[in-house]
Amino acid sequence: MEKLAQDEKQPIYHEIEESLSEESIDRFRAEFLDMHPYDQSECFEALAEEKRHLVYSYLSPEEMADVIEHVDEDIVGDFIVEMNPTYAAEVLAEVATDDAVDILNDLDKDKVASYLTIMSDEAADEIKDLLHYEEKTAGSIMTTEFVVVTTDMTVKQAMRHLRKAAPDAETIYYIYVVDLDRRLVGVISLRDLIIAEGDLTIKDLMSERIVSVSVGDHQEDVAQMVRDYDFLALPVVDFQNHLLGIITVDDIMDVMEEEANEDYSKLAGVDIDANELNPFVSAKKRLPWLIILLFLGMFTASIIARFEATLDQVALLAIFIPLIAGMAGNTGTQALAVAVRGIATGEFQKQGIPKIIAREATTGLITGLTCGLAIWGIIYVWQGTFFLGFLVGVSITATLFVATISGALVPLLMNHFKVDPAVASGPFITTINDIISVLIYFGMATAFMQFLI
Amino acid sequence: MEKLAQDEKQPIYHEIEESLSEESIDRFRAEFLDMHPYDQSECFEALAEEKRHLVYSYLSPEEMADVIEHVDEDIVGDFIVEMNPTYAAEVLAEVATDDAVDILNDLDKDKVASYLTIMSDEAADEIKDLLHYEEKTAGSIMTTEFVVVTTDMTVKQAMRHLRKAAPDAETIYYIYVVDLDRRLVGVISLRDLIIAEGDLTIKDLMSERIVSVSVGDHQEDVAQMVRDYDFLALPVVDFQNHLLGIITVDDIMDVMEEEANEDYSKLAGVDIDANELNPFVSAKKRLPWLIILLFLGMFTASIIARFEATLDQVALLAIFIPLIAGMAGNTGTQALAVAVRGIATGEFQKQGIPKIIAREATTGLITGLTCGLAIWGIIYVWQGTFFLGFLVGVSITATLFVATISGALVPLLMNHFKVDPAVASGPFITTINDIISVLIYFGMATAFMQFLI
Repeated sequence: MEKLAQDEKQPIYHEIEESLSEESIDRFRAEFLDMHPYDQSECFEALAEEKRHLVYSYLSPEEMADVIEHVDEDIVGDFIVEMNPTYAAEVLAEVATDDAVDILNDLDKDKVASYLTIMSDEAADEIKDLLHYEEKTAGSIMTTEFVVVTTDMTVKQAMRHLRKAAPDAETIYYIYVVDLDRRLVGVISLRDLIIAEGDLTIKDLMSERIVSVSVGDHQEDVAQMVRDYDFLALPVVDFQNHLLGIITVDDIMDVMEEEANEDYSKLAGVDIDANELNPFVSAKKRLPWLIILLFLGMFTASIIARFEATLDQVALLAIFIPLIAGMAGNTGTQALAVAVRGIATGEFQKQGIPKIIAREATTGLITGLTCGLAIWGIIYVWQGTFFLGFLVGVSITATLFVATISGALVPLLMNHFKVDPAVASGPFITTINDIISVLIYFGMATAFMQFLI
Repeated sequence: MEKLAQDEKQPIYHEIEESLSEESIDRFRAEFLDMHPYDQSECFEALAEEKRHLVYSYLSPEEMADVIEHVDEDIVGDFIVEMNPTYAAEVLAEVATDDAVDILNDLDKDKVASYLTIMSDEAADEIKDLLHYEEKTAGSIMTTEFVVVTTDMTVKQAMRHLRKAAPDAETIYYIYVVDLDRRLVGVISLRDLIIAEGDLTIKDLMSERIVSVSVGDHQEDVAQMVRDYDFLALPVVDFQNHLLGIITVDDIMDVMEEEANEDYSKLAGVDIDANELNPFVSAKKRLPWLIILLFLGMFTASIIARFEATLDQVALLAIFIPLIAGMAGNTGTQALAVAVRGIATGEFQKQGIPKIIAREATTGLITGLTCGLAIWGIIYVWQGTFFLGFLVGVSITATLFVATISGALVPLLMNHFKVDPAVASGPFITTINDIISVLIYFGMATAFMQFLI
């Protein structure tokens, strides 16, 4: 089995399912355990419930833990709950602590309590320590299974310690150095350790240039750090620099995926779940924003209704409403997207709000003037009326100018007041800009009505 | 220097700048080289040009290579070009091969040729090998600096080989096993190697369960694989399974960020560059979509113009245009976002187009009916007219139904015909759905005109 393309995997999955139908435990174990845990999880997820129960009786809790660690986090809780409680507790004790905490955080509190009671004290204590941390902080994604050495150890002693600790540690490629109070004082990579002479002490070799994160730091900042510095793991400390845990790069990739999906979802105004098979559940996820937009849209309608007299006189005005509203919405979304990314990457914090807004205003003026002049020309050629084109052109210019500023200003202000700027999602900005554009367009049309008739 | 918060770094950067002003090479080197290469690059990027030239004369090509590897990829080419050519070639030879290739790919062809001529043959050959690969393939992001062992080596021999190869290798934590023809036959982790007895051979220890990628695979698929399987590196092979290179997890994180940014940009209809300081350049990046939307918007306007007679009779119809168009645009963007993510994660390929469209149609019908009934009620209460509310309600239902289907269908068809589905960007879908919604709304209003007056 050299490569695992989807079409090569299916026959193997099918054979495994067959071995379960035959209740042939030896054949199942031989074929299933030969796969990578990720493929095991993919195969396992596709099984029917009664076959999953066979798997629980065929695999040790330790073997099952490898599968569970790779199961999609949206459904892993369902599998834990359907196991018998003793087996579930044993599996959870074997799963990497940070993953166990993730799973337990999604379960009912009384279920969690009973699993923790059944579990060995040691495993339960490790999990309890991590359950306290707020979601999306460094504490919530760290693991406590790491290797530490002390400054006075020689390279030989450290290697011996490492060999013993390796099977349980999440990574052994970075080894952290602590003092007697468990304060973080240095780091050494396994690469440097295996090159070094055996008699040197850790103190001579370790790097004191440690980059660490605080337990309460946001996971997005931690991910940014790992990405910038190309680390495979990052130590997590409390305010007194005690080493509490480590965050490994595989968890960081999950955070990156999660944060990217979140930004993308907010821009589209929908809780994205491409896995969702039930249209009623899909509809339930999409309706909240649609209902909000419906009310905002009614508000826009009520504003236009105030200009009914204007509309009655020049019905032709209505034909440019979608154009103006659409362009306002889009330019606002562009400015929003740039601002949300700028805040996420830290670029915008460096520059300061006034400078950014000045730049966005200039950008809005340039795009506004360009589009305004273009539309004036087009309408003049198409309708032959000089003034209608002028009105629409000036409205577009003013609208793009204001919409660009508002698209950037809303997320910036939200960030300033410590609200997640991505909440200023695409549809919200679009609708705000719909309202602004309609006000500008009909306001100007009413003011200059004498030229239109 | 335990942690490197932005406000702690600034005084250090300032001191380094000062040391350059004083032209004190010793002070500069002591302070600059004490920092992590990422911080070095951040400090370096902020320097004025004449100070950067001092840095080039104060740092060896090897030291400068560490800085260059961490510089933002948008600007790194400018720095290379401003160095004197011999120094630049030496720096490029020291940079990790995959990073060197990335930098060279963005430079003029004649510049690249002259750097390669100056460079040592060995370094130049390695780079030339990689320059052939198409952008965004596994080949373009892999590095050739990896460690291989053969099956007959003992653990002791392998460790000795590893110690020698470690300084130049991109990672030593996965060691790949090849046969005499350089065909990939196994893999062993350093973790397993250091735990093993010294007399065992690699053949006994290695895992033959290797997951590899082909040199032409798309980088997004490679990233998905690394994330799923929690690898720190992945081997790249040709069609005969010869080992060509490896891709390490730090490059995968860059790919993930790049792909996420691309999806996000497409949804917003803008080439996002939060770093951009010049409003004219910003405007140039945003105008293409705005101009396209302007023409599509004119098309929408021309459709409404055909219904001018209807509008003249019932000007009140115009006030609901932004509501209907806005909701159509948004529901389309929701369906688009779900489809683009579903295609990216491979979920949708598993399900097949007809099944997805059936599900989206049902979702659209549910959201459409819900919003349609709501709006009918609201307009009835607000305007007191039964039929206008009914017309808007039915239009919303039909519009959401069609817009949801089109939002999903367009990216699915694009993907089917091997076009990147993310090209079906947010503003495009929004405008298509504007047109659909206006056609439905005015078409129905015209057909049932007798009930409206």
